[in-house]
Amino acid sequence: MIKAGIVGGTGYTGVELLRLLAAHPAAELTVITSRGEQGLPVSDLFPNLRGRVDLCFVEPDDAALSRCDVVFFATPNGTAMKSAPALLEAGVKIIDLAADFRFKSAAEWEQWYVMPHTCPEWLAEAVYGLPEVNREAIRSARLIANPGCYPTAVQLGFLPLLEAGVIDPQSLIADAKSGVSGAGRKAEVGTLFSEASDNFRAYNVAAHRHWPEIRQGLIAVTGQPVDLVFTPHLTPMIRGIHATLYATLTDPDADLQAIFERRYATEPFVDVLPPKSHPETRSVRGSNQCRLAVHRPRNGKTVVVLSVIDNLVKGAAGQAVQNMNLLFGLPETAGLEGIGLLP
Amino acid sequence: MIKAGIVGGTGYTGVELLRLLAAHPAAELTVITSRGEQGLPVSDLFPNLRGRVDLCFVEPDDAALSRCDVVFFATPNGTAMKSAPALLEAGVKIIDLAADFRFKSAAEWEQWYVMPHTCPEWLAEAVYGLPEVNREAIRSARLIANPGCYPTAVQLGFLPLLEAGVIDPQSLIADAKSGVSGAGRKAEVGTLFSEASDNFRAYNVAAHRHWPEIRQGLIAVTGQPVDLVFTPHLTPMIRGIHATLYATLTDPDADLQAIFERRYATEPFVDVLPPKSHPETRSVRGSNQCRLAVHRPRNGKTVVVLSVIDNLVKGAAGQAVQNMNLLFGLPETAGLEGIGLLP
Amino acid sequence: MIKAGIVGGTGYTGVELLRLLAAHPAAELTVITSRGEQGLPVSDLFPNLRGRVDLCFVEPDDAALSRCDVVFFATPNGTAMKSAPALLEAGVKIIDLAADFRFKSAAEWEQWYVMPHTCPEWLAEAVYGLPEVNREAIRSARLIANPGCYPTAVQLGFLPLLEAGVIDPQSLIADAKSGVSGAGRKAEVGTLFSEASDNFRAYNVAAHRHWPEIRQGLIAVTGQPVDLVFTPHLTPMIRGIHATLYATLTDPDADLQAIFERRYATEPFVDVLPPKSHPETRSVRGSNQCRLAVHRPRNGKTVVVLSVIDNLVKGAAGQAVQNMNLLFGLPETAGLEGIGLLP
Amino acid sequence: MIKAGIVGGTGYTGVELLRLLAAHPAAELTVITSRGEQGLPVSDLFPNLRGRVDLCFVEPDDAALSRCDVVFFATPNGTAMKSAPALLEAGVKIIDLAADFRFKSAAEWEQWYVMPHTCPEWLAEAVYGLPEVNREAIRSARLIANPGCYPTAVQLGFLPLLEAGVIDPQSLIADAKSGVSGAGRKAEVGTLFSEASDNFRAYNVAAHRHWPEIRQGLIAVTGQPVDLVFTPHLTPMIRGIHATLYATLTDPDADLQAIFERRYATEPFVDVLPPKSHPETRSVRGSNQCRLAVHRPRNGKTVVVLSVIDNLVKGAAGQAVQNMNLLFGLPETAGLEGIGLLP
Repeated sequence: MIKAGIVGGTGYTGVELLRLLAAHPAAELTVITSRGEQGLPVSDLFPNLRGRVDLCFVEPDDAALSRCDVVFFATPNGTAMKSAPALLEAGVKIIDLAADFRFKSAAEWEQWYVMPHTCPEWLAEAVYGLPEVNREAIRSARLIANPGCYPTAVQLGFLPLLEAGVIDPQSLIADAKSGVSGAGRKAEVGTLFSEASDNFRAYNVAAHRHWPEIRQGLIAVTGQPVDLVFTPHLTPMIRGIHATLYATLTDPDADLQAIFERRYATEPFVDVLPPKSHPETRSVRGSNQCRLAVHRPRNGKTVVVLSVIDNLVKGAAGQAVQNMNLLFGLPETAGLEGIGLLP
Repeated sequence: MIKAGIVGGTGYTGVELLRLLAAHPAAELTVITSRGEQGLPVSDLFPNLRGRVDLCFVEPDDAALSRCDVVFFATPNGTAMKSAPALLEAGVKIIDLAADFRFKSAAEWEQWYVMPHTCPEWLAEAVYGLPEVNREAIRSARLIANPGCYPTAVQLGFLPLLEAGVIDPQSLIADAKSGVSGAGRKAEVGTLFSEASDNFRAYNVAAHRHWPEIRQGLIAVTGQPVDLVFTPHLTPMIRGIHATLYATLTDPDADLQAIFERRYATEPFVDVLPPKSHPETRSVRGSNQCRLAVHRPRNGKTVVVLSVIDNLVKGAAGQAVQNMNLLFGLPETAGLEGIGLLP
Repeated sequence: MIKAGIVGGTGYTGVELLRLLAAHPAAELTVITSRGEQGLPVSDLFPNLRGRVDLCFVEPDDAALSRCDVVFFATPNGTAMKSAPALLEAGVKIIDLAADFRFKSAAEWEQWYVMPHTCPEWLAEAVYGLPEVNREAIRSARLIANPGCYPTAVQLGFLPLLEAGVIDPQSLIADAKSGVSGAGRKAEVGTLFSEASDNFRAYNVAAHRHWPEIRQGLIAVTGQPVDLVFTPHLTPMIRGIHATLYATLTDPDADLQAIFERRYATEPFVDVLPPKSHPETRSVRGSNQCRLAVHRPRNGKTVVVLSVIDNLVKGAAGQAVQNMNLLFGLPETAGLEGIGLLP
Repeated sequence: MIKAGIVGGTGYTGVELLRLLAAHPAAELTVITSRGEQGLPVSDLFPNLRGRVDLCFVEPDDAALSRCDVVFFATPNGTAMKSAPALLEAGVKIIDLAADFRFKSAAEWEQWYVMPHTCPEWLAEAVYGLPEVNREAIRSARLIANPGCYPTAVQLGFLPLLEAGVIDPQSLIADAKSGVSGAGRKAEVGTLFSEASDNFRAYNVAAHRHWPEIRQGLIAVTGQPVDLVFTPHLTPMIRGIHATLYATLTDPDADLQAIFERRYATEPFVDVLPPKSHPETRSVRGSNQCRLAVHRPRNGKTVVVLSVIDNLVKGAAGQAVQNMNLLFGLPETAGLEGIGLLP
């Protein structure tokens, strides 16, 4: 059994990691840390785990963590970069669910996350953990930067078109809608039930930290400049991201459906729907699937891609477990076969 | 008092008309018809109206309707066109909340609504009831085609930019999200609570009947061809539309905020928010306001407009009352001063 | 025009008071204070009020408040008792939406609210502002203790039965369900959308501060000891309380429907539904109505009363305005004629 | 592998059975019938099952069903009783998720379900499939009447107290709140999103079919007359039942917590929470757990039990699989180890 630790498991990506690891056939959760909740049984905070997770939160403790095979950081941005180097040097593999290792450029990271990066020397080695793009690199990595939720949904939707060279990379628009759990388990007025329920709004239209992450990923694929407008919205549901993607076709004869089906033919967690489909976020609720559909309204110049994921699973904890499976040579789907909860 | 009748008042636009007319200072509801619910007190179906509306639904009855000053049709598409001509000839003013008189071309209407139009001769005289565009024509009209909900939100967002000539009319994208009441009060599986709650999805991406309506309105304003991609989505809230609009700027020096503020400076029901704002649908819940914000992310080539309305008020019954006020020379805001219910 | 001030208008009862007063025909909002938001335009915090409320929040200021005819305290418990005496002595009428003046016994208040009461001498004069019980006393009062939301729904449901002497006052059970806005506009994890949505739970089953308030009110009516079990629950909606009330009948021949109809025959804001009805919270959404139905399942020994209110209106701000109307000799329904928003 | 068939799998209990059986280690779904959807791939109707269930719906077909080891009826009431006898005689075990075999008295059944019972001779043999009461009888049964959702939550909450003889069986009140999926996947106005969302209401207060079912179960346990008031409510969430139970204590010295803990000490799917707990429905979302807490407010004469289940799992499909496991000598928890989805 792989010995897994979690740093900072009191948020939504934390509890989702716990749910997935508690049922994983080849991993065993051995330590979970939290500065604020030390001593508390995990299942007191998350009663769905009663009878399934017997651990208590402990004070962050490098010794205990360094006895793990893999440590997941489900911490705020800026935390993993402080502890990861020592653990890596102790031979522990690291999967960071925050943004600390997602950018190749420390300068760009510091601009968007507004703090100094404390271990920029690890950025080059870190592998961006999107298995559909970097599978082989992940298998041999030590340090995984687990992608953001929006970037997962958006990149999986644009990639086939960019790789096939059938859209203008200067014409990309990603209109993305997220469930409220994407904002995390922090006490804030804006995500109270009475504020976020029965309401819809955009936010951070001017600038969102996932914009440079998406752009970096798309540029890596195309090798060309990319112009992307990214508009995130908050929608009154708990889980789920729906990205509606627009781009200008450069090849009006491209068989878009075939491009998608071919690209993801062997991917265990990307499901291309038949033509004319509209994927629903609930079809992936609690599951690690991404479901995609591609449209070309009125046979016009604009392609429309619909991409849905569960932001806490394929957009966070599930993808992290998928990366763990790759890191340790396990079947990629181990522990990730849960079926979406519908209704 | 203006004597008002409602044909088909058992749906959501019907009950919303009832709510607004019951509190209107200068109109009196005198008859409400329903083929299915005749004899039933209106307030048995809609208990919020107990003590405020004492009428019962009656069998559709041309004599009673022809004694009204104005008749609202809150009926399925294809109903108003059958009864309107006789009432118009009897001197009754008509406000159709369905689509029967929205298109100038009968052929185009028949293509989208898949039935023959029974009174195409009235299409030329019908006035499209978007007061922000057609105020003067509405004042002297006999027959008002009340706009659709999406078309209201989308047109109000694009109009200032098209009128100012600062965007390419061939580059329009409208990514629109609607609350579930937009689907009406029909028993259908897809809009059950257990299907639509905690879920997000697009629908009718290939073609939606509001697409040609929006296009017709924008072409009328620009006098130029318009290329529009329109993607409707269903979001888990009762009321509200949020339209996120994208277009390519042709004048990079345009002062977008000033264009919007100037265009709507005297409009009682269009509120341009300060720069960097994100309007929320709940800010217009139950009110006749449209709230708009305009953005230009990273000072790039794409303008992003955020437009919110209550689909049942400014998108249907409220706009119909606004049109009634104009038709009868009342203050335009009469009966429409309700403040949005927040939270 | 009555000059009205609000102390602490940044919560949900505050914004609801603002909504009601902004549309009130005989009151004018002249000052609104907030320690945390001074200088901020009210409509920046609550965009539904844009164009309708032009005030900014100001620092709490006794001089400005003492120029008001009436001051509403929409503050946390323990605030009004500090400022009210000076204002009362300056001739200002006070309506406290918090609990400071609800109890007759300072000792009992201190036990439940866990702080010393700073002006117990005012408790005797304060009138409990439930107009259906204390209408005449309210008219001549200076200081109104506006009832809690649960106590309003529960007392209005039990009163007719207790006054008629047809139930055992030792057998009362109130199983109450509240929308999340009842918890206020405080940043807390438990009322985040992702915690409270798609979820149902009881809370404070052992003891809730509304229990002694309800009990005091019922004892005042019966003059007898009352045994009440009160179980509050949180239900995933924004507004609304549904109280399901149980009691053992002592008079099996009582005409329960008649008792309710007679008791509330002339009440403008209590609506007794026909036999076999099930009131819905949405029928009172945004309105000051209480809707009631009485049942006797299988003609047995237990009476079941269903009572619904909007917790922010009849359960808080609306009832406060009703009390203001009584205090100043206005029509009791002035400014309170808004119809419930359905759907 | 056990060969399992499903009759009528197009509703919510159907799709939930499919989700559970698709992941079951010892059962294989071999046939699923639907009169309305024959020929349709199951995963077209329920896209969460794409890639996991490859079957199409077929016309109801006794030959195919009789080759199964077990057939689940997820049909409307009155369907199973017509097909079950032939299948039973062919040696197939039957688990009926509807009500056809839940009552011991055909006359009582006919009174509540308002149709003649077509095979009353099977009622005596049918075993009421509540494993916590009838585990041994289930193991050797041929025909299982799977309990209703409310009856599961209510009986599990009252049983320990009735068995221990510490409450008055004439004093029972069950105030129960259900998510909307309990109403099924039928197109009806009352369960539309726009009707059921942001709303709370009681229904069927006078009489609900689960009342005699609960009563029969409680009488079987106590051997005494039982007086029960049962009030069902609809709460705006998809899944979950929260039953709040009240009874008068006859033994004021009873250790209620110990009674519950002892009763369910070895039950795999009943979890007694620590004193002062408030179970949340979301803690069992998608899982087969029942979570219970027992309270005695102010040490009074009334005990309050809080009981939560997922109505589609422990209240329907999960309990059916639990019964299948018992019928075939499998580990009782096989295929039922999914952890509740939180948030």
